[in-house]
Amino acid sequence: MKIEILDTTLRDGSQGERISFSVRDKIAITEALDELGVAWIEAGNPGSNPKDLEFFRLASSLKLRHAKLCAFGSTRKKGITPEKDGQLKSLLAAGTEAVVIFGKSWDLHVTEVLRAGLDENIAMIAETVAFLRERGRTVIFDAEHFFDGWKANPAYALSTLKAAAGAGAGCIVLCDTNGGSFPDCVARGSAAAKKALAHLASPSGRGASAKGTGIRIGIHAHNDAGMACANTVTAVEAGCTHVQGTLVGFGERCGNTALAALIPSIEIKLKKTCLPPGKLARLTELTWKVAEAANVAVPDNMPYVGHQAFVHKAGMHADGILKVSRSFEHIEPALVGNSRHFPVSETGGRSAIAERVRKIDPSVTRDHPLTVLLSEKVKELEAAGWQFEGADASFELLVRRLIAESQAKSSAGAKAAYKPLFKILAYRVVSEHPTGSSIACSHAWVKVLVDGRDEIAAAEGNGPVHALDGALRRALVHFYAELKQVRLLDYKVRVIDGNEATAAKVRVLIESTDGLRSWSTVGVSDDIIDASRAALVDSIEYKLIIDNEAGGTGGKTA
Amino acid sequence: MKIEILDTTLRDGSQGERISFSVRDKIAITEALDELGVAWIEAGNPGSNPKDLEFFRLASSLKLRHAKLCAFGSTRKKGITPEKDGQLKSLLAAGTEAVVIFGKSWDLHVTEVLRAGLDENIAMIAETVAFLRERGRTVIFDAEHFFDGWKANPAYALSTLKAAAGAGAGCIVLCDTNGGSFPDCVARGSAAAKKALAHLASPSGRGASAKGTGIRIGIHAHNDAGMACANTVTAVEAGCTHVQGTLVGFGERCGNTALAALIPSIEIKLKKTCLPPGKLARLTELTWKVAEAANVAVPDNMPYVGHQAFVHKAGMHADGILKVSRSFEHIEPALVGNSRHFPVSETGGRSAIAERVRKIDPSVTRDHPLTVLLSEKVKELEAAGWQFEGADASFELLVRRLIAESQAKSSAGAKAAYKPLFKILAYRVVSEHPTGSSIACSHAWVKVLVDGRDEIAAAEGNGPVHALDGALRRALVHFYAELKQVRLLDYKVRVIDGNEATAAKVRVLIESTDGLRSWSTVGVSDDIIDASRAALVDSIEYKLIIDNEAGGTGGKTA
Repeated sequence: MKIEILDTTLRDGSQGERISFSVRDKIAITEALDELGVAWIEAGNPGSNPKDLEFFRLASSLKLRHAKLCAFGSTRKKGITPEKDGQLKSLLAAGTEAVVIFGKSWDLHVTEVLRAGLDENIAMIAETVAFLRERGRTVIFDAEHFFDGWKANPAYALSTLKAAAGAGAGCIVLCDTNGGSFPDCVARGSAAAKKALAHLASPSGRGASAKGTGIRIGIHAHNDAGMACANTVTAVEAGCTHVQGTLVGFGERCGNTALAALIPSIEIKLKKTCLPPGKLARLTELTWKVAEAANVAVPDNMPYVGHQAFVHKAGMHADGILKVSRSFEHIEPALVGNSRHFPVSETGGRSAIAERVRKIDPSVTRDHPLTVLLSEKVKELEAAGWQFEGADASFELLVRRLIAESQAKSSAGAKAAYKPLFKILAYRVVSEHPTGSSIACSHAWVKVLVDGRDEIAAAEGNGPVHALDGALRRALVHFYAELKQVRLLDYKVRVIDGNEATAAKVRVLIESTDGLRSWSTVGVSDDIIDASRAALVDSIEYKLIIDNEAGGTGGKTA
Repeated sequence: MKIEILDTTLRDGSQGERISFSVRDKIAITEALDELGVAWIEAGNPGSNPKDLEFFRLASSLKLRHAKLCAFGSTRKKGITPEKDGQLKSLLAAGTEAVVIFGKSWDLHVTEVLRAGLDENIAMIAETVAFLRERGRTVIFDAEHFFDGWKANPAYALSTLKAAAGAGAGCIVLCDTNGGSFPDCVARGSAAAKKALAHLASPSGRGASAKGTGIRIGIHAHNDAGMACANTVTAVEAGCTHVQGTLVGFGERCGNTALAALIPSIEIKLKKTCLPPGKLARLTELTWKVAEAANVAVPDNMPYVGHQAFVHKAGMHADGILKVSRSFEHIEPALVGNSRHFPVSETGGRSAIAERVRKIDPSVTRDHPLTVLLSEKVKELEAAGWQFEGADASFELLVRRLIAESQAKSSAGAKAAYKPLFKILAYRVVSEHPTGSSIACSHAWVKVLVDGRDEIAAAEGNGPVHALDGALRRALVHFYAELKQVRLLDYKVRVIDGNEATAAKVRVLIESTDGLRSWSTVGVSDDIIDASRAALVDSIEYKLIIDNEAGGTGGKTA
């Protein structure tokens, strides 16, 4: 049976700290999740947040191809009928085919948090499900704290599931709301739930599944003990066919099951289908898209879809991979749309370096003198705080400069791999407050030399680096008009040795684009201005060299 | 039996992308891990990295109270005797009581990667272990790819364990090197290993454990399927008593088992001891310390020790917690030295703010006008990129300033919660290259006003912030001699909105100390100099106010 995926990025995910979605963010996320092909998108809690109702109204006009929206709420309040419950009215007003409601299945919560009788809670569950079924909704019942409840009072916990199922819920979801359960408990609890609901697991037409193939059992896990993925896989192995989580993994506290870290395990390793054909290979791209819309970073080390997930830093691993890829990779990266990468580092060794140099000069082997020289140079620079892992363009320039040096030493003639295209003769950056005039708090001037001619230019900016960047570009654009297309995409600062505080070294990483492609450069110094200058210079040089080789401006030199 | 923890932050952890340790970082990490009380610190691979040998030499003079260092290497090369193997010589030269060696247990690796015969590999394992045992070393044998090997060729995989054990290894570690195994496989594989080694699991004096209580079985997991914690817990339940990982979790690709996310599960939930008494409550602090030394961030949503691990954003959860804490928390946060937090956010609200203000003024309640005002102010500042979670001193100053404002509006008389003790009238910071004189590339002057008198001072520095800090302190020390004791411990820069590149806002976090205590302050601006200025001013004001209240210099005012 196909595993039905419910993504709750827009509901449980929005409860992650520092997560706050605009309506536009929500639309972008909905579209990306639909593109991925999840079955359900839990898009909000209209009863507790009126803004969510607005979203459901807007979203009803979206043309979704795979996913259906559902609204989230709770069982009726104690002491009133469902008809009188405003929250349930909002839930219906969302106008979705399915609704997800949560109810208590841990007796402690019933008596201490709800402060209701155990029977009253059963009635609340059954009446709410029946009320929603009568109004044509498919009902997904989230049994909150199921595993804790099942450990504390198994008969009662199971009776809450039976109440929801008996009243017509199409899917019963076992929730590890506090995220502290271990796989063995999830395996046993899921088996107990399956047994308790076995008489209902036959075709009934009520199903959350479109084909009405009977009641489904689902799993909703949190990561408070680092076990959300393992618990979810365990539940699926125990027979759950509905899986809840958030694509990137964010959510209340330590987050929900990260679906991007889970779906490949289910599809590739358990060989059960979650997504429409062809979608798994787009998992990395769409996960990054959702993270982008949510304004969070995909953790570098995230399983399957992280930047580092298939990065092999140890020399021995890189060597093994080149012989047999499955020797050091648990899956082929392309299956999830990710790719293998060998970073340049102290532990990386010469194979990785040679692999990258070959992209510039195919004749260079692992034992070529240039590889040896470069390997030494990289070690030396890394010891001084440089890092080329996130700065491919700076690495390429380093290679080109070394090739040019060795060319110069041997006879000339070959096409130069590198020649300096400009030189900064001097710069001054000033930040002051208050300023004596109408110029901004930070301003800079730069004097450059190109082809024997010098040029000076000034700029002001938000901050000293912005000012320096502006002045440098203004001076150089006299010689290289193509620099007008270049702009910075990202600027990152890392203090390398925190213990020295403001006297510490900083590493600046810059990502630039000319609209067609983007590249990254690095600079290191104990002065943030100087580190930025180094990264800016590399960024501009890289652009000029690449354009030049593509038959651009021809070789001016400094 | 006590669970023996081996931390490999300095070895496997250093294989994480973008991780690069200086010798000083390594010493700081070693000391923090010892303070936590892990049994073993795997501190490097002297055979593949000569710098590691240097570290072992330096580290031998450290006074460690709990942990012992071990060096990491591999079985001998094929075709030579251990005596001829330079890598094994380096391993011995590290001078540690124990050594960890890895060997192949997956037949694919032996034939395809090592390109050795299956019997030769067995000989390599047995001879290497015997060689190291003869030289007095306790040997921990890492069976690389054990679970993959056991699935492919169980008899051969188990024979590699037996070879190591038979030659005298004290601990046999089952490695999920590619990180793709699921808990059920780990459970069955561990049981098979235990059975194969059962005849050796009796007292023998060879143990990695100090008391020589027989051979231990260990587990080394990676997180490529998000299951490192679950796999490790599963292995412990199956009888493993030696656990490898890295405290913060970084390591090759998706990282190793994050020990900080694991140890509480074992101690609190499995009720097995890993650390000396009292240490678990310091887990959060020491994890942050190691991350700091490694210059990586502890993920906000990291289980147990992350900033968000006990943050309750949903109003309903916060409400439940206030009734019964275990209703929405799987453990008491204090057990691991973390704390519960109700964030200031759309869904959070005033309870959280009042909770924090009460630490400064116990009379302030949830509905106090100050709480309302502060809640508005914090929302406004957070929307502009400020963040007070890592900057308690700045938060306290914010509260004091607001209290002082409301005191000023009502009648006077009460002791002032805050009065400005100095004012920066003007500053100028210059970074230039080349300089026209003998002063450094960055220099600054600052003019301050204290008690109606002004003072100007200049300083040069490594970078503009260092210069500004120097000048500001020189000017103020004329009035406040106690500032001589203050120095900066840490300086961090975070670009808040990467999309605006160098024109983006930056947040600067500063940690200061006067030798007795330390405090943290924050500044936000689109100018890094101005953001640094704000954080420096808060740092100095906080020191002066605290000293003043302790009966210090008495009240000068700006």
